[in-house]
Amino acid sequence: MSDLRFDTTCIGNAIVDVISKVEDKFLEEENLVKNSMNLIDEDRAEQLYSRMGAAVEISGGSAGNTAAGVASLGGRSNYIGKVKNDQLGAIFAHDIRAMGVNFDTQMAEGGPATARSFILVTPDAHRTMNTYLGACVELGPDDIDPAVIAASQVTYMEGYLWDPEGGKAAFRKAAEISHEADQRVSLTLSDSFCVDRFRDEFKDFISGGVDILFANEDEIKSLYQTDDISTAIEAVRSQVEIACITRSADGSLIVEGDNTVEVAADTTVDVIDTTGAGDLYAAGFLYGFTNGRSLAESGAIASLAAAEVISHVGARPEKDLKELIESRI
Amino acid sequence: MSDLRFDTTCIGNAIVDVISKVEDKFLEEENLVKNSMNLIDEDRAEQLYSRMGAAVEISGGSAGNTAAGVASLGGRSNYIGKVKNDQLGAIFAHDIRAMGVNFDTQMAEGGPATARSFILVTPDAHRTMNTYLGACVELGPDDIDPAVIAASQVTYMEGYLWDPEGGKAAFRKAAEISHEADQRVSLTLSDSFCVDRFRDEFKDFISGGVDILFANEDEIKSLYQTDDISTAIEAVRSQVEIACITRSADGSLIVEGDNTVEVAADTTVDVIDTTGAGDLYAAGFLYGFTNGRSLAESGAIASLAAAEVISHVGARPEKDLKELIESRI
Repeated sequence: MSDLRFDTTCIGNAIVDVISKVEDKFLEEENLVKNSMNLIDEDRAEQLYSRMGAAVEISGGSAGNTAAGVASLGGRSNYIGKVKNDQLGAIFAHDIRAMGVNFDTQMAEGGPATARSFILVTPDAHRTMNTYLGACVELGPDDIDPAVIAASQVTYMEGYLWDPEGGKAAFRKAAEISHEADQRVSLTLSDSFCVDRFRDEFKDFISGGVDILFANEDEIKSLYQTDDISTAIEAVRSQVEIACITRSADGSLIVEGDNTVEVAADTTVDVIDTTGAGDLYAAGFLYGFTNGRSLAESGAIASLAAAEVISHVGARPEKDLKELIESRI
Repeated sequence: MSDLRFDTTCIGNAIVDVISKVEDKFLEEENLVKNSMNLIDEDRAEQLYSRMGAAVEISGGSAGNTAAGVASLGGRSNYIGKVKNDQLGAIFAHDIRAMGVNFDTQMAEGGPATARSFILVTPDAHRTMNTYLGACVELGPDDIDPAVIAASQVTYMEGYLWDPEGGKAAFRKAAEISHEADQRVSLTLSDSFCVDRFRDEFKDFISGGVDILFANEDEIKSLYQTDDISTAIEAVRSQVEIACITRSADGSLIVEGDNTVEVAADTTVDVIDTTGAGDLYAAGFLYGFTNGRSLAESGAIASLAAAEVISHVGARPEKDLKELIESRI
């Protein structure tokens, strides 16, 4: 690294997406809940793959998508995640670097194959994910370089990273280093099932030191076990410096202290595949925030980045987001 | 195989496409001729890949795309091609079977990796291909099951298959078996550079027993080394039972004896990526031909299938072509 300063370091499960269009009937037959992320083992991965239609492979992973988004916006972006040294690992590494992201996590030489997520996109553009974590279980605290974290304005982590044990430890180590260096720690709750798995740990972790929290309405309601979004928002308000609550087509709320900023969604695009919407929202917000934009501006960038990624198949931007933003904001 | 009867058996180089959008400038910098197919070695593959942007992986291979098209149209489709038993090989095998194509060529256990073609799509939707043949060089006559060829109405082969030596031998063996069984042999000239490489052999092979020939204008002119398309068409007329000459947006000419059928292109779609246009034209024609349609009808099916595949990224149909054809023809 020539210049050890990053706007954001994103840490997550490094995954290649295997994307296929399916009818709703297929989800029923496979007992899958639409919009969920299911963790699957290798046997189930093979079984599901054998039943799925022809697919497209595109690099993904929630925090990887966010890192790609920050880079596409022109931000200094770093990524930490574990792939194996195999064909899909080489594809993942190529793609994230080709987006302009710094990526130098050591590849695993042995153990399980590079992770993949079988993403089933139904005609309504919603996605249902089935993730085989593979080599992601090999990520651990040793993959966290303190100098890199200390040099990152924001260290952003996906809740999904708590599924593999080593990921959780890496996560805690990175948060500690970030705070010691007076930088910010950011977390996305990832998915309401993920919140179910780790509710108490997430609450402790958030109150113990998350500065910027991303969640959709289901996730934040699940975190505080309430059906009422206002109750959840009031609960989170005192816990973090900034909370971004996404509301799909209704835009988002950005909560900071007593202040609440309402951000409109960009509804000008045809929705093809919602995969990556939350990841690119986070990318847009973090890019804006780390580059001195106001909350409202950062939210507007977030909305545009999210809209771009749902206008096509795949969870990383196809357009140059820097150009897109300059033409719109 | 429960029912050993196929409309078509397609034989070709089994390739995973690695597709990336580039500016024209990139082609210039890499000394690439737009619309060409360049054979590259492993070193060049790595070099080019490191310079390319983020990509999407989709199963391809010219004859593989044709096999997928025949299956999508509802035809009984078989494919012969060689991948290695690696991650990309598993992806190729999954995808072609998921399209409904019978595929049981033994995977290579050793030797080079599964082939990939780095396909660069410029803003004008044209594609420039850079193919690392990898495991395709392992295909040989032993991969040709005489019973399968004898049970296929048409055995269709891509000119590209002449690049690896074993492919050529497999090709000749299949043609011989097909003719002995009173079935038809079909060839696509693939690419004018491919014709340059094998002109004399192609001419011998065609006059010795190609029943249905596919070529675009550049290819057929190159075959007969003439600048005049009429001269080329008159030359091919006496050589094969049927010649389909594709002319991009100007449609195609189907030549059979003294008869010439003009077929219009389907120009109702937005052209996104021309990869696979010729492959799907062949699929449409062969499906029609092997299912008792007239030349004009077969040509119309061919035009619709080609139009579908150029309306999106990737060289295999995304829509169910059977439904598409039923709604249009």
